[in-house]
Amino acid sequence: MKYPAGSKTVFTKKEIDYSNRGMNLEEDINLSNEYYRSIDKAYIYKKPTPIQITKVDYPSRNKAVIKEAYFLEPSTTDYNGIYKGKYIDFEAKQTSNNTSFPLSNIHKHQIKHIENVIRHKGVAFLIIRFTRLNETYLLEGEKLIDYINNNTKKSIPHSYFLKNATLLKNEYRPRIDYLKIVDEILEVDKK
Amino acid sequence: MKYPAGSKTVFTKKEIDYSNRGMNLEEDINLSNEYYRSIDKAYIYKKPTPIQITKVDYPSRNKAVIKEAYFLEPSTTDYNGIYKGKYIDFEAKQTSNNTSFPLSNIHKHQIKHIENVIRHKGVAFLIIRFTRLNETYLLEGEKLIDYINNNTKKSIPHSYFLKNATLLKNEYRPRIDYLKIVDEILEVDKK
Repeated sequence: MKYPAGSKTVFTKKEIDYSNRGMNLEEDINLSNEYYRSIDKAYIYKKPTPIQITKVDYPSRNKAVIKEAYFLEPSTTDYNGIYKGKYIDFEAKQTSNNTSFPLSNIHKHQIKHIENVIRHKGVAFLIIRFTRLNETYLLEGEKLIDYINNNTKKSIPHSYFLKNATLLKNEYRPRIDYLKIVDEILEVDKK
Repeated sequence: MKYPAGSKTVFTKKEIDYSNRGMNLEEDINLSNEYYRSIDKAYIYKKPTPIQITKVDYPSRNKAVIKEAYFLEPSTTDYNGIYKGKYIDFEAKQTSNNTSFPLSNIHKHQIKHIENVIRHKGVAFLIIRFTRLNETYLLEGEKLIDYINNNTKKSIPHSYFLKNATLLKNEYRPRIDYLKIVDEILEVDKK
Protein backbone atom coordinates (compact mmCIF):
# COMPACT_ATOMS: atom_id res chain seq x y z
CA MET A 1 0.00 0.00 0.00
CA LYS A 2 1.47 3.32 -1.02
CA TYR A 3 0.42 6.59 0.46
CA PRO A 4 1.11 10.05 -0.96
CA ALA A 5 3.90 11.94 0.79
CA GLY A 6 2.58 13.41 3.99
CA SER A 7 -0.31 11.01 4.45
CA LYS A 8 -0.23 8.21 6.94
CA THR A 9 -1.86 4.91 7.63
CA VAL A 10 -5.15 5.21 9.45
CA PHE A 11 -5.65 1.47 9.94
CA THR A 12 -4.18 1.61 13.42
CA LYS A 13 -6.71 -0.91 14.69
CA LYS A 14 -5.85 -3.56 12.14
CA GLU A 15 -3.70 -6.35 13.50
CA ILE A 16 -3.05 -7.93 10.13
CA ASP A 17 0.43 -7.27 8.86
CA TYR A 18 0.04 -6.68 5.13
CA SER A 19 3.71 -5.82 4.77
CA ASN A 20 4.67 -9.46 4.81
CA ARG A 21 2.14 -11.55 2.91
CA GLY A 22 4.17 -14.72 3.29
CA MET A 23 3.59 -14.47 7.01
CA ASN A 24 -0.15 -14.07 6.80
CA LEU A 25 -1.83 -16.50 9.16
CA GLU A 26 -5.07 -16.78 7.19
CA GLU A 27 -3.14 -17.71 4.07
CA ASP A 28 -1.11 -20.30 5.98
CA ILE A 29 -4.26 -21.88 7.39
CA ASN A 30 -6.09 -21.87 4.08
CA LEU A 31 -3.12 -23.59 2.42
CA SER A 32 -2.92 -26.11 5.26
CA ASN A 33 -6.62 -26.88 4.89
CA GLU A 34 -6.20 -27.29 1.12
CA TYR A 35 -3.36 -29.70 1.80
CA TYR A 36 -5.43 -31.67 4.31
CA ARG A 37 -8.22 -31.95 1.74
CA SER A 38 -5.80 -33.00 -1.00
CA ILE A 39 -4.65 -35.99 1.08
CA ASP A 40 -8.24 -36.71 2.23
CA LYS A 41 -7.30 -36.09 5.87
CA ALA A 42 -9.85 -33.47 6.90
CA TYR A 43 -12.47 -31.19 5.38
CA ILE A 44 -12.13 -27.85 7.11
CA TYR A 45 -13.04 -24.60 5.40
CA LYS A 46 -12.97 -20.92 6.15
CA LYS A 47 -16.46 -19.51 6.22
CA PRO A 48 -17.12 -16.63 3.86
CA THR A 49 -17.07 -13.15 5.37
CA PRO A 50 -20.59 -12.34 6.55
CA ILE A 51 -22.03 -9.35 4.74
CA GLN A 52 -25.38 -7.70 4.30
CA ILE A 53 -26.13 -7.00 0.66
CA THR A 54 -28.23 -3.90 0.10
CA LYS A 55 -27.92 -3.32 -3.64
CA VAL A 56 -27.39 -5.66 -6.57
CA ASP A 57 -27.22 -4.71 -10.24
CA TYR A 58 -27.92 -7.05 -13.13
CA PRO A 59 -25.97 -5.53 -16.03
CA SER A 60 -26.78 -8.64 -18.05
CA ARG A 61 -28.81 -11.80 -17.69
CA ASN A 62 -27.25 -14.25 -15.20
CA LYS A 63 -24.60 -11.74 -14.20
CA ALA A 64 -25.09 -10.05 -10.86
CA VAL A 65 -22.86 -7.33 -9.43
CA ILE A 66 -23.16 -6.37 -5.79
CA LYS A 67 -23.05 -2.59 -5.68
CA GLU A 68 -23.57 -1.98 -2.00
CA ALA A 69 -22.94 -4.24 0.97
CA TYR A 70 -21.78 -3.98 4.56
CA PHE A 71 -19.62 -6.17 6.76
CA LEU A 72 -21.49 -7.89 9.57
CA GLU A 73 -20.13 -9.05 12.90
CA PRO A 74 -19.58 -12.83 12.75
CA SER A 75 -21.78 -14.91 15.05
CA THR A 76 -19.50 -17.94 14.84
CA THR A 77 -15.82 -18.61 14.35
CA ASP A 78 -14.18 -18.47 10.92
CA TYR A 79 -13.20 -22.10 10.41
CA ASN A 80 -15.08 -25.33 10.84
CA GLY A 81 -15.30 -28.80 9.42
CA ILE A 82 -14.81 -32.49 10.01
CA TYR A 83 -11.78 -34.52 11.09
CA LYS A 84 -11.85 -38.17 12.18
CA GLY A 85 -15.62 -37.93 12.43
CA LYS A 86 -15.31 -35.03 14.88
CA TYR A 87 -16.67 -31.52 14.57
CA ILE A 88 -13.73 -29.08 14.46
CA ASP A 89 -14.17 -25.36 15.04
CA PHE A 90 -11.65 -22.58 15.44
CA GLU A 91 -10.80 -18.94 15.09
CA ALA A 92 -7.43 -17.62 13.88
CA LYS A 93 -6.01 -14.24 14.78
CA GLN A 94 -2.70 -12.52 14.61
CA THR A 95 -1.42 -9.67 16.68
CA SER A 96 1.56 -7.36 16.29
CA ASN A 97 1.63 -7.07 20.06
CA ASN A 98 4.68 -8.71 21.67
CA THR A 99 3.52 -9.14 25.23
CA SER A 100 -0.15 -10.12 25.06
CA PHE A 101 -3.07 -11.03 22.83
CA PRO A 102 -5.86 -8.41 23.09
CA LEU A 103 -9.21 -10.10 23.70
CA SER A 104 -10.92 -7.38 21.68
CA ASN A 105 -9.83 -9.46 18.67
CA ILE A 106 -12.42 -12.09 19.55
CA HIS A 107 -16.07 -11.06 19.50
CA LYS A 108 -18.33 -11.98 22.42
CA HIS A 109 -20.49 -14.08 20.08
CA GLN A 110 -17.45 -16.06 19.10
CA ILE A 111 -16.51 -16.81 22.72
CA LYS A 112 -20.08 -17.94 23.37
CA HIS A 113 -19.89 -20.07 20.22
CA ILE A 114 -16.67 -21.74 21.43
CA GLU A 115 -18.38 -22.53 24.75
CA ASN A 116 -21.33 -24.04 22.87
CA VAL A 117 -19.09 -26.23 20.73
CA ILE A 118 -17.19 -27.53 23.76
CA ARG A 119 -20.42 -28.31 25.63
CA HIS A 120 -21.65 -30.27 22.60
CA LYS A 121 -18.41 -32.30 22.41
CA GLY A 122 -16.80 -30.67 19.42
CA VAL A 123 -13.15 -29.64 19.32
CA ALA A 124 -12.80 -25.85 19.59
CA PHE A 125 -9.63 -23.79 19.73
CA LEU A 126 -7.86 -20.61 18.73
CA ILE A 127 -4.80 -20.30 16.52
CA ILE A 128 -2.98 -17.14 17.58
CA ARG A 129 0.07 -15.71 15.88
CA PHE A 130 2.35 -13.13 17.47
CA THR A 131 3.64 -11.75 14.19
CA ARG A 132 6.68 -9.88 15.54
CA LEU A 133 7.79 -12.86 17.59
CA ASN A 134 7.03 -15.18 14.67
CA GLU A 135 5.25 -17.53 17.08
CA THR A 136 1.99 -19.32 16.38
CA TYR A 137 0.05 -21.07 19.13
CA LEU A 138 -2.89 -23.40 19.35
CA LEU A 139 -4.88 -22.54 22.47
CA GLU A 140 -7.64 -25.00 23.34
CA GLY A 141 -11.09 -23.50 23.77
CA GLU A 142 -11.22 -24.77 27.36
CA LYS A 143 -8.06 -22.80 28.23
CA LEU A 144 -9.48 -19.67 26.62
CA ILE A 145 -12.71 -19.95 28.62
CA ASP A 146 -10.73 -20.69 31.81
CA TYR A 147 -8.70 -17.55 31.31
CA ILE A 148 -11.73 -15.36 30.64
CA ASN A 149 -13.61 -16.73 33.65
CA ASN A 150 -10.69 -16.21 36.00
CA ASN A 151 -9.24 -12.92 34.83
CA THR A 152 -10.50 -9.42 34.41
CA LYS A 153 -7.71 -8.39 32.03
CA LYS A 154 -8.62 -7.40 28.52
CA SER A 155 -5.76 -9.38 27.05
CA ILE A 156 -4.07 -12.75 27.45
CA PRO A 157 -0.39 -12.37 28.35
CA HIS A 158 2.19 -14.08 26.18
CA SER A 159 3.28 -16.05 29.25
CA TYR A 160 -0.16 -17.70 29.37
CA PHE A 161 0.46 -19.07 25.89
CA LEU A 162 3.89 -20.36 26.92
CA LYS A 163 2.30 -22.31 29.77
CA ASN A 164 -1.09 -23.31 28.35
CA ALA A 165 -0.88 -23.39 24.55
CA THR A 166 1.10 -25.45 22.05
CA LEU A 167 3.61 -23.79 19.77
CA LEU A 168 3.00 -24.63 16.10
CA LYS A 169 6.04 -24.89 13.85
CA ASN A 170 6.16 -23.24 10.44
CA GLU A 171 6.50 -26.06 7.96
CA TYR A 172 6.35 -26.58 4.24
CA ARG A 173 3.33 -28.83 3.79
CA PRO A 174 1.13 -28.24 5.58
CA ARG A 175 2.32 -24.78 6.53
CA ILE A 176 0.87 -25.25 10.01
CA ASP A 177 0.17 -28.84 11.01
CA TYR A 178 -2.45 -27.97 13.60
CA LEU A 179 -4.20 -31.35 13.27
CA LYS A 180 -1.17 -32.95 14.93
CA ILE A 181 -2.18 -31.06 18.08
CA VAL A 182 -5.85 -31.96 17.56
CA ASP A 183 -4.71 -35.61 17.53
CA GLU A 184 -3.15 -35.08 20.96
CA ILE A 185 -6.32 -33.41 22.23
CA LEU A 186 -8.45 -36.30 20.97
CA GLU A 187 -6.04 -38.80 22.53
CA VAL A 188 -6.03 -37.11 25.95
CA ASP A 189 -9.77 -36.44 26.05
CA LYS A 190 -10.69 -39.74 24.38
CA LYS A 191 -13.24 -37.64 22.59
CA MET B 1 -41.17 -7.04 -6.84
CA LYS B 2 -43.12 -4.76 -9.17
CA TYR B 3 -42.38 -4.38 -12.83
CA PRO B 4 -43.59 -1.57 -15.09
CA ALA B 5 -46.49 -2.50 -17.38
CA GLY B 6 -45.18 -4.45 -20.30
CA SER B 7 -42.04 -5.69 -18.64
CA LYS B 8 -41.68 -9.22 -17.41
CA THR B 9 -39.66 -11.24 -15.00
CA VAL B 10 -36.33 -12.38 -16.39
CA PHE B 11 -35.42 -14.59 -13.44
CA THR B 12 -36.68 -17.69 -15.20
CA LYS B 13 -33.83 -19.78 -13.81
CA LYS B 14 -34.58 -18.95 -10.19
CA GLU B 15 -36.30 -21.71 -8.31
CA ILE B 16 -37.00 -19.60 -5.24
CA ASP B 17 -40.60 -18.57 -4.96
CA TYR B 18 -40.54 -14.98 -3.73
CA SER B 19 -44.30 -14.66 -4.07
CA ASN B 20 -44.85 -16.53 -0.85
CA ARG B 21 -42.26 -15.52 1.71
CA GLY B 22 -43.90 -17.54 4.46
CA MET B 23 -43.14 -20.65 2.46
CA ASN B 24 -39.48 -19.86 1.98
CA LEU B 25 -37.39 -22.89 2.86
CA GLU B 26 -34.29 -20.95 3.84
CA GLU B 27 -36.31 -18.87 6.27
CA ASP B 28 -37.90 -22.00 7.76
CA ILE B 29 -34.52 -23.63 8.26
CA ASN B 30 -32.91 -20.53 9.73
CA LEU B 31 -35.79 -20.22 12.22
CA SER B 32 -35.51 -23.92 13.06
CA ASN B 33 -31.78 -23.54 13.67
CA GLU B 34 -32.41 -20.50 15.88
CA TYR B 35 -34.91 -22.54 17.85
CA TYR B 36 -32.48 -25.45 18.23
CA ARG B 37 -29.85 -23.01 19.52
CA SER B 38 -32.31 -21.39 21.92
CA ILE B 39 -32.98 -24.75 23.59
CA ASP B 40 -29.26 -25.70 23.45
CA LYS B 41 -30.03 -28.69 21.21
CA ALA B 42 -27.71 -28.07 18.25
CA TYR B 43 -25.48 -25.36 16.82
CA ILE B 44 -26.06 -25.34 13.10
CA TYR B 45 -25.63 -22.20 11.01
CA LYS B 46 -26.05 -21.13 7.45
CA LYS B 47 -22.74 -20.14 5.95
CA PRO B 48 -22.58 -16.63 4.54
CA THR B 49 -22.90 -16.32 0.77
CA PRO B 50 -19.43 -16.57 -0.76
CA ILE B 51 -18.46 -13.41 -2.59
CA GLN B 52 -15.36 -11.87 -4.04
CA ILE B 53 -14.94 -8.29 -2.94
CA THR B 54 -13.25 -6.10 -5.53
CA LYS B 55 -13.86 -2.59 -4.21
CA VAL B 56 -14.32 -1.20 -0.71
CA ASP B 57 -14.83 2.44 0.24
CA TYR B 58 -14.07 3.93 3.62
CA PRO B 59 -16.35 6.96 3.84
CA SER B 60 -15.33 7.35 7.45
CA ARG B 61 -12.95 5.73 9.90
CA ASN B 62 -14.07 2.24 10.96
CA LYS B 63 -16.92 2.27 8.44
CA ALA B 64 -16.40 0.22 5.34
CA VAL B 65 -18.82 0.00 2.43
CA ILE B 66 -18.40 -2.70 -0.19
CA LYS B 67 -18.91 -0.98 -3.55
CA GLU B 68 -18.23 -3.87 -5.89
CA ALA B 69 -18.38 -7.60 -5.30
CA TYR B 70 -19.33 -10.74 -7.17
CA PHE B 71 -21.07 -13.93 -6.18
CA LEU B 72 -18.84 -17.02 -6.14
CA GLU B 73 -19.83 -20.62 -6.64
CA PRO B 74 -19.96 -22.34 -3.24
CA SER B 75 -17.41 -25.12 -2.67
CA THR B 76 -19.34 -26.59 0.21
CA THR B 77 -22.94 -26.88 1.30
CA ASP B 78 -24.80 -24.00 2.92
CA TYR B 79 -25.41 -25.37 6.41
CA ASN B 80 -23.18 -27.08 8.90
CA GLY B 81 -22.65 -27.45 12.61
CA ILE B 82 -22.70 -29.77 15.58
CA TYR B 83 -25.41 -32.01 17.03
CA LYS B 84 -24.86 -34.69 19.68
CA GLY B 85 -21.13 -34.39 19.10
CA LYS B 86 -21.60 -35.19 15.41
CA TYR B 87 -20.66 -33.11 12.42
CA ILE B 88 -23.85 -32.17 10.53
CA ASP B 89 -23.79 -30.86 6.97
CA PHE B 90 -26.57 -30.17 4.51
CA GLU B 91 -27.84 -28.23 1.55
CA ALA B 92 -31.40 -26.92 1.20
CA LYS B 93 -33.12 -26.27 -2.10
CA GLN B 94 -36.61 -25.67 -3.30
CA THR B 95 -38.05 -26.28 -6.72
CA SER B 96 -41.28 -25.17 -8.35
CA ASN B 97 -41.15 -28.34 -10.43
CA ASN B 98 -43.88 -30.87 -9.56
CA THR B 99 -42.44 -34.07 -10.96
CA SER B 100 -38.70 -33.97 -10.28
CA PHE B 101 -35.86 -32.13 -8.59
CA PRO B 102 -33.36 -30.80 -11.19
CA LEU B 103 -29.81 -31.77 -10.19
CA SER B 104 -28.57 -28.53 -11.73
CA ASN B 105 -29.61 -27.00 -8.40
CA ILE B 106 -26.69 -28.71 -6.69
CA HIS B 107 -23.18 -27.78 -7.80
CA LYS B 108 -20.66 -30.53 -8.55
CA HIS B 109 -18.44 -29.23 -5.74
CA GLN B 110 -21.30 -29.65 -3.33
CA ILE B 111 -21.91 -33.27 -4.34
CA LYS B 112 -18.20 -33.99 -3.91
CA HIS B 113 -18.36 -32.27 -0.51
CA ILE B 114 -21.28 -34.45 0.57
CA GLU B 115 -19.29 -37.55 -0.44
CA ASN B 116 -16.32 -36.30 1.59
CA VAL B 117 -18.45 -35.70 4.68
CA ILE B 118 -19.99 -39.18 4.48
CA ARG B 119 -16.58 -40.83 4.05
CA HIS B 120 -15.35 -38.98 7.15
CA LYS B 121 -18.33 -40.11 9.20
CA GLY B 122 -20.32 -36.92 9.32
CA VAL B 123 -24.06 -36.72 8.72
CA ALA B 124 -24.80 -35.22 5.29
CA PHE B 125 -28.15 -34.71 3.63
CA LEU B 126 -30.33 -32.53 1.45
CA ILE B 127 -33.54 -30.80 2.44
CA ILE B 128 -35.63 -30.43 -0.70
CA ARG B 129 -38.93 -28.60 -0.96
CA PHE B 130 -41.36 -29.02 -3.81
CA THR B 131 -43.01 -25.65 -3.38
CA ARG B 132 -46.13 -26.29 -5.46
CA LEU B 133 -46.77 -29.60 -3.75
CA ASN B 134 -45.96 -28.06 -0.37
CA GLU B 135 -43.78 -31.08 0.40
CA THR B 136 -40.39 -30.95 2.10
CA TYR B 137 -38.10 -33.98 2.18
CA LEU B 138 -34.90 -34.94 3.93
CA LEU B 139 -32.81 -37.04 1.55
CA GLU B 140 -29.75 -38.67 3.09
CA GLY B 141 -26.47 -37.96 1.34
CA GLU B 142 -25.97 -41.67 0.71
CA LYS B 143 -29.26 -41.84 -1.21
CA LEU B 144 -28.31 -38.80 -3.27
CA ILE B 145 -24.94 -40.32 -4.20
CA ASP B 146 -26.60 -43.67 -4.96
CA TYR B 147 -29.00 -41.99 -7.33
CA ILE B 148 -26.28 -40.03 -9.12
CA ASN B 149 -24.07 -43.10 -9.49
CA ASN B 150 -26.85 -45.24 -10.90
CA ASN B 151 -28.74 -42.82 -13.11
CA THR B 152 -27.90 -40.65 -16.05
CA LYS B 153 -30.93 -38.42 -15.63
CA LYS B 154 -30.39 -34.76 -14.86
CA SER B 155 -33.10 -34.74 -12.24
CA ILE B 156 -34.37 -36.86 -9.37
CA PRO B 157 -38.01 -37.88 -9.90
CA HIS B 158 -40.52 -37.08 -7.19
CA SER B 159 -41.19 -40.81 -6.86
CA TYR B 160 -37.58 -41.32 -5.70
CA PHE B 161 -38.29 -38.98 -2.79
CA LEU B 162 -41.47 -40.88 -1.94
CA LYS B 163 -39.48 -44.12 -1.69
CA ASN B 164 -36.11 -42.97 -0.36
CA ALA B 165 -36.56 -39.72 1.54
CA THR B 166 -38.45 -38.71 4.66
CA LEU B 167 -41.29 -36.22 4.48
CA LEU B 168 -40.83 -33.34 6.93
CA LYS B 169 -43.94 -31.84 8.45
CA ASN B 170 -44.48 -28.09 8.68
CA GLU B 171 -44.68 -27.30 12.36
CA TYR B 172 -44.72 -24.29 14.58
CA ARG B 173 -41.50 -24.62 16.56
CA PRO B 174 -39.25 -25.65 15.04
CA ARG B 175 -40.77 -24.98 11.64
CA ILE B 176 -39.05 -28.08 10.29
CA ASP B 177 -37.89 -30.58 12.88
CA TYR B 178 -35.21 -32.14 10.71
CA LEU B 179 -33.13 -33.25 13.71
CA LYS B 180 -35.85 -35.78 14.50
CA ILE B 181 -34.84 -37.54 11.27
CA VAL B 182 -31.15 -37.10 12.08
CA ASP B 183 -31.87 -38.93 15.36
CA GLU B 184 -33.26 -41.85 13.34
CA ILE B 185 -30.21 -41.82 11.06
CA LEU B 186 -27.87 -41.85 14.06
CA GLU B 187 -29.88 -44.66 15.65
CA VAL B 188 -29.83 -46.85 12.53
CA ASP B 189 -26.19 -46.20 11.65
CA LYS B 190 -25.04 -46.19 15.29
CA LYS B 191 -22.81 -43.40 14.12
